[in-house]
Amino acid sequence: MPASYKAPLTDLRFALYDVLGVEPLFQRLGYTDATRDILDAVLDEAARFTETVLAPLNSVGDEIGSQLDKATGEVTTPPGFKAAYAQFVEGGWTGLTASPELGGQGLPHTMGVPLNELVNASNLAWGNFPLLSHGAVEALKHHGEAWQQEIFLKPLVEGRWTGTMCLTEPHCGTDLGLLKTKAEPNADGSYAITGTKIFITAGEHDLTDNIVHLVLAKLPDAPPGAKGISLFVTPKFKVARDGTVGERNALSCGSIEHKMGIKASVTCVMNFDGAQGYLVGQPHKGLQAMFTMMNTARLGVGLQGIGLSERAYQNALRYARERLQTRSLSGAKFPDKPADPILVHPDVRRMLLTVKSLVEGSRLLALHAGTLIDIANHAENPTERERADTLVSFLTPISKACQTEWGIENTYHALQCFGGHGYIHEHGMEQLARDARITTLYEGTTGIQALDLMGRKTAATQAAGLKLFLADVHAFVQQHKDDASLTEFIDPLQQKAAEWAGLTKNILQRAAANPEEIGAASTDYLFYSGYVVLAYWWARSVAAAAASPHGDAFKQAKRETARFYFARILPRTLSHAAAIESGADTLMAMDDARFGD
Amino acid sequence: MPASYKAPLTDLRFALYDVLGVEPLFQRLGYTDATRDILDAVLDEAARFTETVLAPLNSVGDEIGSQLDKATGEVTTPPGFKAAYAQFVEGGWTGLTASPELGGQGLPHTMGVPLNELVNASNLAWGNFPLLSHGAVEALKHHGEAWQQEIFLKPLVEGRWTGTMCLTEPHCGTDLGLLKTKAEPNADGSYAITGTKIFITAGEHDLTDNIVHLVLAKLPDAPPGAKGISLFVTPKFKVARDGTVGERNALSCGSIEHKMGIKASVTCVMNFDGAQGYLVGQPHKGLQAMFTMMNTARLGVGLQGIGLSERAYQNALRYARERLQTRSLSGAKFPDKPADPILVHPDVRRMLLTVKSLVEGSRLLALHAGTLIDIANHAENPTERERADTLVSFLTPISKACQTEWGIENTYHALQCFGGHGYIHEHGMEQLARDARITTLYEGTTGIQALDLMGRKTAATQAAGLKLFLADVHAFVQQHKDDASLTEFIDPLQQKAAEWAGLTKNILQRAAANPEEIGAASTDYLFYSGYVVLAYWWARSVAAAAASPHGDAFKQAKRETARFYFARILPRTLSHAAAIESGADTLMAMDDARFGD
Repeated sequence: MPASYKAPLTDLRFALYDVLGVEPLFQRLGYTDATRDILDAVLDEAARFTETVLAPLNSVGDEIGSQLDKATGEVTTPPGFKAAYAQFVEGGWTGLTASPELGGQGLPHTMGVPLNELVNASNLAWGNFPLLSHGAVEALKHHGEAWQQEIFLKPLVEGRWTGTMCLTEPHCGTDLGLLKTKAEPNADGSYAITGTKIFITAGEHDLTDNIVHLVLAKLPDAPPGAKGISLFVTPKFKVARDGTVGERNALSCGSIEHKMGIKASVTCVMNFDGAQGYLVGQPHKGLQAMFTMMNTARLGVGLQGIGLSERAYQNALRYARERLQTRSLSGAKFPDKPADPILVHPDVRRMLLTVKSLVEGSRLLALHAGTLIDIANHAENPTERERADTLVSFLTPISKACQTEWGIENTYHALQCFGGHGYIHEHGMEQLARDARITTLYEGTTGIQALDLMGRKTAATQAAGLKLFLADVHAFVQQHKDDASLTEFIDPLQQKAAEWAGLTKNILQRAAANPEEIGAASTDYLFYSGYVVLAYWWARSVAAAAASPHGDAFKQAKRETARFYFARILPRTLSHAAAIESGADTLMAMDDARFGD
Repeated sequence: MPASYKAPLTDLRFALYDVLGVEPLFQRLGYTDATRDILDAVLDEAARFTETVLAPLNSVGDEIGSQLDKATGEVTTPPGFKAAYAQFVEGGWTGLTASPELGGQGLPHTMGVPLNELVNASNLAWGNFPLLSHGAVEALKHHGEAWQQEIFLKPLVEGRWTGTMCLTEPHCGTDLGLLKTKAEPNADGSYAITGTKIFITAGEHDLTDNIVHLVLAKLPDAPPGAKGISLFVTPKFKVARDGTVGERNALSCGSIEHKMGIKASVTCVMNFDGAQGYLVGQPHKGLQAMFTMMNTARLGVGLQGIGLSERAYQNALRYARERLQTRSLSGAKFPDKPADPILVHPDVRRMLLTVKSLVEGSRLLALHAGTLIDIANHAENPTERERADTLVSFLTPISKACQTEWGIENTYHALQCFGGHGYIHEHGMEQLARDARITTLYEGTTGIQALDLMGRKTAATQAAGLKLFLADVHAFVQQHKDDASLTEFIDPLQQKAAEWAGLTKNILQRAAANPEEIGAASTDYLFYSGYVVLAYWWARSVAAAAASPHGDAFKQAKRETARFYFARILPRTLSHAAAIESGADTLMAMDDARFGD
């Protein structure tokens, strides 16, 4: 049977209400309608929709995939996808956190986080269709001219149109300074966009009447490199300045990629042949505008890792309870059955608890980032806004990269719990693993996130984000330092926080003499950071559970999972710290030729 | 373009001749024909065959897969597979290490190791067809009656027939005591086998005229559980005691599995409907006979991890040299090009060096195991034979599990070096990753290997295998303790060897009080062991390279890779040691219900 899914509402509510305290937060930020009953109703309805509409389409999407008709350039999504999208639009989900004047529901940004987790868990490939609209909205909202906002925002927010991000070209992905797509001015103030873009998610599909491409291209007078890139809004069907939708624009999907997973997600080669586009923002400042989209998208991709992990966990747990195989080493636990369920075996428990502790910890990392975006946008105090902005910038690469890397690890463990059966298509576990594999690649690979964390967010800011995070840790420690029931978590957390600061200082010192030290430390530093961040959230979870109205079993489960995390996962920091401290020499010494023939 | 492949002959020769010293060893063991020129010719010819015949069929096999005609029960392998198999047989490769009286080439077992690495690297799915014949030969050679050996061994050795291992049933894989397949005596001394087996690799195909199934089943008077299992040889076409091949036996392939990878490898549901089989070995002693097959097969699967890793490395390295993207953080390295090749970036180097150090280290672990099998079979001195047997038993689960887990890690890194392009089918990297995913599952999952290592090979023997390995380490250290150029490797190796002994002692002490400690420590202990074993081989590699006729660039590459390994990979032992020392409590405390709904 295909992988089943049930939205983890209890844990989401615990994270939102008991750990993060979003009820008073939302009120303080002016979201007066975002009361507990409204939030609960949103979660319930999101669970119903994703469990019953999206989740059953997940294996269908994998088996049939999206298909391109080369003759017409039209893409057909798998059966059920279009109807599900119509229901999603009908339910107002595309604009859940957008402002009512744009046709949105006006809920806090934070509430988009659980929605995205649920969508991604139930159907990652489907979720990629609405995903990038959100980024397009952000880019147009912050950088578009008034008339562009007027014309494009409402259809995007309401989901009648979807958006794309057209960055990558065959010869450039990370290094957008190399891009070749050209934008030449037309007489009417628009631009003619010409070039080839690749890896364009949802570049073509049959879910909506129009598709809004946000395209990076170079103006004729562009300075070379990354400082000469401009952003253009270029719809599939032309849109006049008065909003009238006209003829087909000169752009088309040339082919779609055959991928390891997310087979229903359409990954297009897009050909622009003098397509009509409008400049968004200032000439040559396109990259900054695109970063607005990218940060949102990165946090969104991080949620894909959590969603897949949660679904993988649920299925592995079910299998571990049902599958009878051998006896417990400490004596039969179910002597009336032919063998014990494999959940009795410590190594199976190790795998499941690894997933559980990483998923529940990650969920707080992601939701916390959501609250920081709300604070950065809506707090009255500008210092508080700036603080939240700095902190979420720091946490974004950690969230994106760790949650997706853990997504790969978690789907690995869950598949492994199934033994050979995990490798067979029908159980759905191998699809989760294949789908997860894209998440550490798109929207910036893990290596790119690590460089962003270590370079832009740490070295370039004298570790401003880290200092804010460590201040939060310190405040938590101070608040609970007399609670003996938390000592087992607080002591190692404090120790790791101090170690983290020390490692950072050492790296920055070494980097002053040799800039390669930044790249050499980056990925190990990223993981190190992720594990300490989760230790903080696990300590806070135990404290919050104790103070919550939840029952003893829930509190006990949080404490036991936290104990597992501190005993078995947090020690991964030891090897990352050792790798960091070993410096750049062992990486840089080898001459290119000596790597091999 | 699909993933290319070139057999790593230089490194294989270094490992065989310079590190392991197989030339004098083979002579000492009586393989007088196994001279350097013969061995070199075998390696050259194996390279030519695998590079030119098997490697080009790898992507074909993935795209087309093997197909079952449900009406006839016949399986058609992908185009080219049958012709390649005929060439393999023609070249005498199936019997490379078998004795000449059985139609083999009479080379040492060790020489099968590079052959299998090359076959697996070039085409893993294809390699699964001949793979299990070797195990069938071993089982029949050691446990079969003389007439069975007479009839079955030669066709298997010569590759005219292939073998299978029919163990798993729908409700039992690890726990074979639960199996239901029945064997009822016929009047002529044969048995009627009835039952359903699943996951039967190469259970049906079109490569050979006959297929020899070795089937586990229960006799009518079988005691319950694992002590009541017998082994039967059950060919696809009946074979009379005089060797005459007769009619179709009452067995057939009911369906083939749809898998994540190795799509050309046929994974069959086999239905036995009173099929004629002959008892192999003693009644109820089938599991012991099957273990003979399994140990061979486990080492063979370990080589799959190495082969896939090597191919992944070669392609990632080529891509890292060709792909131009951004500049080195320490300044442009190729200012005349539009950007630097990504090989300049420390994080890309980290990924490549991780793969390189794990592959080259694993190669020695695997080849060493090969030499131990030759010593165990052919040394004059019985003490030496027994020592080699104990040591290879200890190293088998480490070799199988670590090499396959590293295979997954290595194909992960190599794919990651390609960025988004790695996720696209046409580059072949995602196939390597999907193919690798089976290797930690079949022939005993990693968790099962870990239990074998920790329980049967360590706790049950008072760590006999470990003591022998540590004695080898000690001898090496003594031999080189005055060589200052090796101190940087010898010191940490010594320290880790002592730590390994201490950890083992602690686990066994805790296990005396609580048997769950065995399972709780097992997987972390397995990885810990694997990393220390590789540290030993890296230290020996540096020493052997220095004393070898290889050029300075080769010696330097070995030293630099070893330095990377000691600085960046060996520290993984820190987190595994911490997890081991944390004991079983955090795994066992959680009540089943608290794992989740």
